[in-house]
Amino acid sequence: MKKTSIKDIAKLSGVSIATVSRVINNNGRFSEETRKKILDVIEETGYQMNFSAKSLRMNKSFSVGILVPDISNYFFSDVVQKIEEELFELGYSTIICNTGRNIEKETAYLNMLRSKLVDGIIVISGVDEFVFHYDDIPYICIDREPLKKEKTIFISSNHYQGAFEATESLINNGCKHPAILMYDRQSSSAKERFKGYKDALKKNNISYNESSHLLLSGLEENFTENLQAFLERTDQVDSFFAVNDTLAMKLFSSLKELGEKIPEDFKIIGFDDSPLAHYSSPTLSSVKQNTDKIAQLTVKNLIDFISSGKIINYQTILVPVELVVRNSSLNN
Amino acid sequence: MKKTSIKDIAKLSGVSIATVSRVINNNGRFSEETRKKILDVIEETGYQMNFSAKSLRMNKSFSVGILVPDISNYFFSDVVQKIEEELFELGYSTIICNTGRNIEKETAYLNMLRSKLVDGIIVISGVDEFVFHYDDIPYICIDREPLKKEKTIFISSNHYQGAFEATESLINNGCKHPAILMYDRQSSSAKERFKGYKDALKKNNISYNESSHLLLSGLEENFTENLQAFLERTDQVDSFFAVNDTLAMKLFSSLKELGEKIPEDFKIIGFDDSPLAHYSSPTLSSVKQNTDKIAQLTVKNLIDFISSGKIINYQTILVPVELVVRNSSLNN
Repeated sequence: MKKTSIKDIAKLSGVSIATVSRVINNNGRFSEETRKKILDVIEETGYQMNFSAKSLRMNKSFSVGILVPDISNYFFSDVVQKIEEELFELGYSTIICNTGRNIEKETAYLNMLRSKLVDGIIVISGVDEFVFHYDDIPYICIDREPLKKEKTIFISSNHYQGAFEATESLINNGCKHPAILMYDRQSSSAKERFKGYKDALKKNNISYNESSHLLLSGLEENFTENLQAFLERTDQVDSFFAVNDTLAMKLFSSLKELGEKIPEDFKIIGFDDSPLAHYSSPTLSSVKQNTDKIAQLTVKNLIDFISSGKIINYQTILVPVELVVRNSSLNN
Repeated sequence: MKKTSIKDIAKLSGVSIATVSRVINNNGRFSEETRKKILDVIEETGYQMNFSAKSLRMNKSFSVGILVPDISNYFFSDVVQKIEEELFELGYSTIICNTGRNIEKETAYLNMLRSKLVDGIIVISGVDEFVFHYDDIPYICIDREPLKKEKTIFISSNHYQGAFEATESLINNGCKHPAILMYDRQSSSAKERFKGYKDALKKNNISYNESSHLLLSGLEENFTENLQAFLERTDQVDSFFAVNDTLAMKLFSSLKELGEKIPEDFKIIGFDDSPLAHYSSPTLSSVKQNTDKIAQLTVKNLIDFISSGKIINYQTILVPVELVVRNSSLNN
């Protein structure tokens, strides 16, 4: 006798395979009526739930993995939570892997996700040159551009636009010498923000000079001293575009230590529009990423990819950002 | 002929099963020499990597699941990241599941983790009455006390101590009427903090009166109006113990809106010692949880539990906390 499959259960119950999986895994939404119907069919047919690798692979596991560099980062945790919510609505579990921007961990977690038979993977890579080595799992890259682009979709905020608008807003508010504060590691998003900053200077006839415009930081202990040295070297600096809100807050506390006032002495704009921006004093102007939209697009494209099984041509989807102006960059 | 097992590979290579697993899964630390030796043995014996459910169960999967109510919460993301780091050092992958304080999701993710054959589970439950239904997987509960306590270890900060010390510190700084600000949902940790607060009042001969001491909040839109109504009803309030830093920041911005000064008009102490505490103006006094210690204890106990396979008698481990006094609760 042919062994009963999950497909047979779905057919006999008059529901989709996805629904049967949801009931078996007790995952996602289904009515009590549906549950009863499916359990009856399972009982009648003597169907044995088979969690072996191969059968799960064929039947789909209704789980998706996501690599994230750092869950304590506001943008990452926000977008990951929204993706989880969207996927759960569709009957998928989300396996979150925190990779700490470590290439060894990214590789280890990709292997783990594969061994756990996830149906697809969402990658926010924390390393410079991310390469995905597997041909058998659909994946989508968000925020950090992958090195190989043939077999994925890349979804990202328009970091260039955000940095351009932030910088131009400082200039429009009277700043003559806006500096940029960024980490010394250069993700694809940081590079785009740097480009946007420089192009805004150029458009406004301010010539960029590395030693007086660029302050690199790794959130080091002696940040205040480095900032002081930078300001002494370049006494024309009157404002900062910080590539994220954490760096902007670092600036806030160090400038205050140095006796400077915000926005009177220095205007500041951050990036991410994190809760810090609302609670700091003064409140922080910041570039808001549309995490709802990024999560929606990511889930839609991944599920299409999983369902069709087709390798989709590479495309980049840029999601617009919005500059939220608060007190830290306004004129007095 | 008997099929070669991972145990045989370990024996023939002269290494532990854990090391073989790490090499096969490319997960964790091992030398290039070890890797070569193991791969040679695998080749010689014709060992087939078998990812089927049963064999993985027997051989261990070197993966651990963790349920977390909300990765955007500072304490949770901090402790989860530290646990991940400790486990990775030991050759284990960590599967993070964000449950959104939703009992349906907690159940779904527990089932998922089980179907993915994790070796153990760490539970930070977000629901009132958490029950773990499986007898076959070692688990440790942290932060939120489980309903059934026979088969687990419960590790938590000493929330009672933190709240007691915070409240007493307000009183020692001259406050006569410290109110408590808390969410209306009551986790076990919130209950302990509430108890500590009330006991500190009692010890200092301040009689607790719900209508003038307790402000419940759900981070609602009209928080400022609720706060104003509360302050009008009870014009003696001179300070707040907020059960976390997010609520404390909410107080900061609403009190400022109402024209009040911190710490002159109201002294405030929060809980968690999140980055918000350092960057707010004034800086926020807060109770710091020892997440390093919680992570260490959790990993040590879970790994012991997994290795011994033994059901350990229930015990509660309370980790001391530390009050960090900053400007928001000091005398002028």
